[in-house]
Amino acid sequence: MSNIVYIATSLDGYISDKDGGLDWLQMVPNPDNLDFGWANFMNRIDAVVMGRKTFETVCSFDCDWPYTKPVFVLSSSLKSFPEEYEGKAEAIGGPVSEVLKTIKNKGYEHLYIDGGVTVQNFLKEDLIDEMIITVIPVLLGGGTPLFSELPKQMEFECVKSEVILDAMVKNHYRRKK
Amino acid sequence: MSNIVYIATSLDGYISDKDGGLDWLQMVPNPDNLDFGWANFMNRIDAVVMGRKTFETVCSFDCDWPYTKPVFVLSSSLKSFPEEYEGKAEAIGGPVSEVLKTIKNKGYEHLYIDGGVTVQNFLKEDLIDEMIITVIPVLLGGGTPLFSELPKQMEFECVKSEVILDAMVKNHYRRKK
Repeated sequence: MSNIVYIATSLDGYISDKDGGLDWLQMVPNPDNLDFGWANFMNRIDAVVMGRKTFETVCSFDCDWPYTKPVFVLSSSLKSFPEEYEGKAEAIGGPVSEVLKTIKNKGYEHLYIDGGVTVQNFLKEDLIDEMIITVIPVLLGGGTPLFSELPKQMEFECVKSEVILDAMVKNHYRRKK
Repeated sequence: MSNIVYIATSLDGYISDKDGGLDWLQMVPNPDNLDFGWANFMNRIDAVVMGRKTFETVCSFDCDWPYTKPVFVLSSSLKSFPEEYEGKAEAIGGPVSEVLKTIKNKGYEHLYIDGGVTVQNFLKEDLIDEMIITVIPVLLGGGTPLFSELPKQMEFECVKSEVILDAMVKNHYRRKK
């Protein structure tokens, strides 16, 4: 079982700006509409795990549903979804370790862990195996940070690093234990 | 005139750990004692500008004086240095813009800006032209952050990116104006 983060941050480590905005993610011109490896990554994973806030953010995007795999939304309060998300997403509550057990029992092995709070909660329990982080070359100067305080240091190895569109650096890290 | 940051951070953006420690900088084995481009960088710059705290940290290192260029230590209170640093470092006080004017008038054009607080103060006034940041693949989970709140977003371009010793990613960014 592997839990994989796939996310973009600013140079100063934010995943959304001071106003919660994400416009800066499209800062680098992408005329050929490259997906930067998104489809390959989607093929690699079995399911997505995200927090409620991230789910709501994705639902608000003016684009097609981006996930081709089942999405588990971490929430103890959420009971139902708007009709259009039925069959695409389901709510799951409880502590992280319990949630993982439930998802694994459903046969899902490789999980895409998404959203700041969720990533932070997984990291606090040392449950992240890989992180694929694309750094957008902008200092936002404030916003929602990807990382938070951790109880211990955690070492990773750099599996791959590539520059995309002469601007963004996509780094693939694997937990070293 | 260009003001250049050359620094290492953890994956979560810290320049020293929770205890102020720097051991993690040597985390990646470097059996051939590579300098990762340090000497070349030293040749490129004319002088170093750092805060008093960084100066004291460097003075505490159990190694030879690492700088081959004059060092300006930003301090309004510091009047004299221990004898061993005479001719190597001098104190300079006042607001950042004044300090830069003074240093430029002395004939120094390309400046290495070092230390968290100093980098942050320069960034707040949009006075950084380049940042060479080497990311060490460890989450420290707390410590002294490289970046701080900024009054505005600042865009950079990625001039170069290289993986060092299959572990660290050294990125060279240039301010885009």
